[in-house]
Amino acid sequence: MHFASDNAGPVHPKVMEALIRANQGHAPSYGADDLTAAATGALLAALEAPGAAAFLVGTGTAANALILAAMAAPWETVFCARTAHIEEDECGAPEFFSAGAKLTLIDGPDGKIAPEALEAVLEAHQGHGVHQVQPGPVSLTQVTEKGTLYSLAELRELCAIAHRFGRKVHMDGARFANAVAALGCTPAEASWQAGVDALSFGGTKNGLMGAEAAVFFDPALARDFAFRRKRGAHLFSKHRYLAAQIGAALEDGLWLEMAGAANAAARRLEEGLAATGQVRLLHPREANMIFAGMPRALHRKLKAGGAEYHVSGTLETGDPGEMLAARLVCDWSADPADTDRFLALF
Amino acid sequence: MHFASDNAGPVHPKVMEALIRANQGHAPSYGADDLTAAATGALLAALEAPGAAAFLVGTGTAANALILAAMAAPWETVFCARTAHIEEDECGAPEFFSAGAKLTLIDGPDGKIAPEALEAVLEAHQGHGVHQVQPGPVSLTQVTEKGTLYSLAELRELCAIAHRFGRKVHMDGARFANAVAALGCTPAEASWQAGVDALSFGGTKNGLMGAEAAVFFDPALARDFAFRRKRGAHLFSKHRYLAAQIGAALEDGLWLEMAGAANAAARRLEEGLAATGQVRLLHPREANMIFAGMPRALHRKLKAGGAEYHVSGTLETGDPGEMLAARLVCDWSADPADTDRFLALF
Amino acid sequence: MHFASDNAGPVHPKVMEALIRANQGHAPSYGADDLTAAATGALLAALEAPGAAAFLVGTGTAANALILAAMAAPWETVFCARTAHIEEDECGAPEFFSAGAKLTLIDGPDGKIAPEALEAVLEAHQGHGVHQVQPGPVSLTQVTEKGTLYSLAELRELCAIAHRFGRKVHMDGARFANAVAALGCTPAEASWQAGVDALSFGGTKNGLMGAEAAVFFDPALARDFAFRRKRGAHLFSKHRYLAAQIGAALEDGLWLEMAGAANAAARRLEEGLAATGQVRLLHPREANMIFAGMPRALHRKLKAGGAEYHVSGTLETGDPGEMLAARLVCDWSADPADTDRFLALF
Amino acid sequence: MHFASDNAGPVHPKVMEALIRANQGHAPSYGADDLTAAATGALLAALEAPGAAAFLVGTGTAANALILAAMAAPWETVFCARTAHIEEDECGAPEFFSAGAKLTLIDGPDGKIAPEALEAVLEAHQGHGVHQVQPGPVSLTQVTEKGTLYSLAELRELCAIAHRFGRKVHMDGARFANAVAALGCTPAEASWQAGVDALSFGGTKNGLMGAEAAVFFDPALARDFAFRRKRGAHLFSKHRYLAAQIGAALEDGLWLEMAGAANAAARRLEEGLAATGQVRLLHPREANMIFAGMPRALHRKLKAGGAEYHVSGTLETGDPGEMLAARLVCDWSADPADTDRFLALF
Repeated sequence: MHFASDNAGPVHPKVMEALIRANQGHAPSYGADDLTAAATGALLAALEAPGAAAFLVGTGTAANALILAAMAAPWETVFCARTAHIEEDECGAPEFFSAGAKLTLIDGPDGKIAPEALEAVLEAHQGHGVHQVQPGPVSLTQVTEKGTLYSLAELRELCAIAHRFGRKVHMDGARFANAVAALGCTPAEASWQAGVDALSFGGTKNGLMGAEAAVFFDPALARDFAFRRKRGAHLFSKHRYLAAQIGAALEDGLWLEMAGAANAAARRLEEGLAATGQVRLLHPREANMIFAGMPRALHRKLKAGGAEYHVSGTLETGDPGEMLAARLVCDWSADPADTDRFLALF
Repeated sequence: MHFASDNAGPVHPKVMEALIRANQGHAPSYGADDLTAAATGALLAALEAPGAAAFLVGTGTAANALILAAMAAPWETVFCARTAHIEEDECGAPEFFSAGAKLTLIDGPDGKIAPEALEAVLEAHQGHGVHQVQPGPVSLTQVTEKGTLYSLAELRELCAIAHRFGRKVHMDGARFANAVAALGCTPAEASWQAGVDALSFGGTKNGLMGAEAAVFFDPALARDFAFRRKRGAHLFSKHRYLAAQIGAALEDGLWLEMAGAANAAARRLEEGLAATGQVRLLHPREANMIFAGMPRALHRKLKAGGAEYHVSGTLETGDPGEMLAARLVCDWSADPADTDRFLALF
Repeated sequence: MHFASDNAGPVHPKVMEALIRANQGHAPSYGADDLTAAATGALLAALEAPGAAAFLVGTGTAANALILAAMAAPWETVFCARTAHIEEDECGAPEFFSAGAKLTLIDGPDGKIAPEALEAVLEAHQGHGVHQVQPGPVSLTQVTEKGTLYSLAELRELCAIAHRFGRKVHMDGARFANAVAALGCTPAEASWQAGVDALSFGGTKNGLMGAEAAVFFDPALARDFAFRRKRGAHLFSKHRYLAAQIGAALEDGLWLEMAGAANAAARRLEEGLAATGQVRLLHPREANMIFAGMPRALHRKLKAGGAEYHVSGTLETGDPGEMLAARLVCDWSADPADTDRFLALF
Repeated sequence: MHFASDNAGPVHPKVMEALIRANQGHAPSYGADDLTAAATGALLAALEAPGAAAFLVGTGTAANALILAAMAAPWETVFCARTAHIEEDECGAPEFFSAGAKLTLIDGPDGKIAPEALEAVLEAHQGHGVHQVQPGPVSLTQVTEKGTLYSLAELRELCAIAHRFGRKVHMDGARFANAVAALGCTPAEASWQAGVDALSFGGTKNGLMGAEAAVFFDPALARDFAFRRKRGAHLFSKHRYLAAQIGAALEDGLWLEMAGAANAAARRLEEGLAATGQVRLLHPREANMIFAGMPRALHRKLKAGGAEYHVSGTLETGDPGEMLAARLVCDWSADPADTDRFLALF
């Protein structure tokens, strides 16, 4: 009953096989190898962005923080949702890599930034003089940290607003695959065609061992990235093993197949939870994450039964502390029998 | 004919097997898994340092820079050899992670710091007031960047000098395994028993895929390390795969076996080169690296023949540019037949 | 009609005289002079804090940012009001000097942090793991940026809450003199006796040329301050001229006399404004600042008449943009005739 | 007998008078006042550089570090003399403000960088890849820290070399006035006409209270300077008092008059020292600083007699420690009688 995180799941067998295949003899280090060229080429092809620049790194936080450092001057602020991973779960990595840029938090329902909220905050940062931090990029998380999605129309509108104010757009795509699979669109539609200027292309949460890509659709933003990555200690010497993972994911659409499986498992879990009548869905389930409000007693029973998931907080009710918010995440390897066992605990 | 670097070599099959074994089902992320506990435990056992603190990271630069950031305040300077990796090959990562600490470079033959040179520079930094950067840790590289070794006696003397001046000692042990194998001592003798306070325990150059450890023999130095690692984007979510590598290396002494094989291959290569009478050894060959001076014409012939190695500079001779310094590195997988083919090119 | 800022006013004649007196012959530089010893001694005496540590700097932002850097690790967050100077008016200086610490903003009426709001945010930061930034110091602004005051009871309560959660308290006292004068208490009561651990003691806004002090009531916090100040380029060589200013301010209570005059002028202005019946006071006038809501037409008339003040925003009314928020500040040199001329414009 | 430093001297009476004149009524803060416009205008006029950008700051370290931060990316290195103030006397401020840029030290006699040495180090940094820090600006100190001067021909040659390698040139002109006075050239000849791209224009060591200017002859380099200065806490609110100092210095050539007086006093002292036959001049005396080797016994006698100067080290002789290096500095206010009293101690 493994719903703790999609980064608790195993690596897909095809990815392991690719790693084994990559492990033949010697190869140039630091990304000068053929596999790296092939993997970044495959990534740009999948994104239909041959002129973009892509770099491999080992963690999602590295992708986010290094990209944001390339997009935001130290005296600028990054606009993001209050619930964004870059704000809540990276121990200040964006501030560290950017040499002290600020994050300006935007509230909104379901972990999303509403267009009018973005417009208002950008408007409020117009005309800032030397005493205030200057407006920097907008960072959108897709899938959001609450498991919801921006529709393509919403993405386009948000990016258009950002661009109208002269702001670039970063997408934290730790679960970009889940988003593309759920939206049923092309990766290009979900990124640069909607207006995204730079993308953290997630892999680790989607069946890889530890590989992510930083993609700059605007290659001018990537000018110093190689130095930032090296200096940030994220230039892996045995680069072929990062490349093998990304390459395997992109082969025959495995990445979308894995993400689709994770999304389907979450949908199945959602339906099962609804049938129990004992939990309340806190946000729409749109990809592979479910946030469920449940009584503490139920939570205790589930945990006692061996279920694994995180509690993300308590719900504010008249009866405080009695309702917990549980986060349940499915990964590509989710087993229906596991879900059935979990549901049988109710 | 692969002598470019030990990070160009493949992963040892036993390590690949361990990765495959680790890839079973779900496991807690971010280092809370059993494999991580086992691997760090095994590492501390190998080092005979049960009270030390060990953390896994993905690159050697991360280990070095994060450790030095924990040891040096921003207004301090790190004492190291002019040829040190932290000075020459990390694009300023120590400065970045430490928020601007300085590096004070010490010249010396064969990539080594001589005791009297260390004493002199520490003496010169005594009594520095507020206008000068303050003395920070001493960083020793073992194996050095010139392929030489500090003997245990030398290590002890250098550490004793550092400690006498109140300075802590960091060891950049990207090739610590090669050093221990070559010295024929215990890992403890080569580290904390000699006076080393923190160690970058290298794995990637020694048959792993991408795994290093930061070891603090003085656990007080590790107080903030978890935050530094996370904020530095080096806390891997699927930690078990880092742990599997380190664990496999430590099992049945595989790490020293691999390092010993690399050293032996380099010795064999050294003997072959000497027999050609056409190159000049620039530094004593003491582990798995050879620096050979050779005429440019010979270099061209070797490269044309398909040999892979790096040129680290030109030698200052009366006839400038005619003598090149070639760096040849052997890894655990070095094939004697490969060496024979290379020597046959002469 | 000078209400733009208290830093637009002149230096008090007694301070100028002190500068002229200080300008005799040679004096040791960098704070080793007698005047510096005397001024910091006088400051600690005024604060009844002989064991505290005091350092002179040139700007209020330097005092704030350097103190916060000494109190907050890079992976910590500073709790402050959303309207705080450190958030709104320092272009990210706290982030810069602290190497990337975060600011967590607390909303509240009249520029103040309410005890329950502080408690809630500190409670919410309890038990943060390695993924989140850690709780750091609480920063209170006294006089607040909205011209209001924390009462001694409020200060004590806020500090007690902070301390209960293990957090230290910084006070941005750019207008500390105005606060003490308005509260009618001792400087000690308004600072360390209420629980303040470090104080930015403002001078420039209170009749000095450019001199502030960083005061650590907990001298342990000051351990590295001399290095931070020098490295931050705020160790003035001709220190005696900073010291002369601070010394003159403290002599015979001049600092409180100046602050009292500024407060009184603001009270007089407030009364006059109320009598016009044309403006709405947006926050209680408790020191030397007034925030007045006024119709745009009135604003135009006042500006046309030569009045100097800043517009801090527009008020959200049914009729947007028609009501402006004007900030009017009085300094020690405020001339009643000037105020009368201003009021005559209505 | 005041030879400790030119920053131990008093402020010139004309500068004090300018401060008093500036102290009339209210003035816009943060540099929006008329005096600031006039002073920067006068500075650019004196430099014959109407298109340049000038900013006032409070300390020489601020000017240096902020300018270098604008010129050097964090992954670049600044080339400077080993004896440079930015290396030896700023506690790492350049590293701090630049977010971790490195300093590459160039040895040379008399505190100077020889053209061939500069060429060699820039040549050695050609073709650096991502593993090494990248070449950044060249920083020249004029007057050097050893009291010597670059001739105009030397300056032109050094700048030409730097530019040939694509490097910009910074001049640390804390004693720029002394240099111009000693060289007998125009300020333009000593700066941009020789190829200097940015200048730290010193004032504090030359009779001011605490005012320096950062001048960018290439205004493109100044693009972000206003943010850097504010964020660095060096934007003074009561800017008029910085401006008054710079303005007074530039009026009727007072700055060169003061510098000339300091230089003349040093020449007189030099002649007197030579006449004693008891000291050895360690570097040519070319401006207002003298470095004299003297026996420890003589040093004791001078100190006992009340002489004030700094010992900058011990000379390496066969008889170590017996010969000290004394630094004697004259400022604009140096009194011949004071010098006579000092010489009478021998």
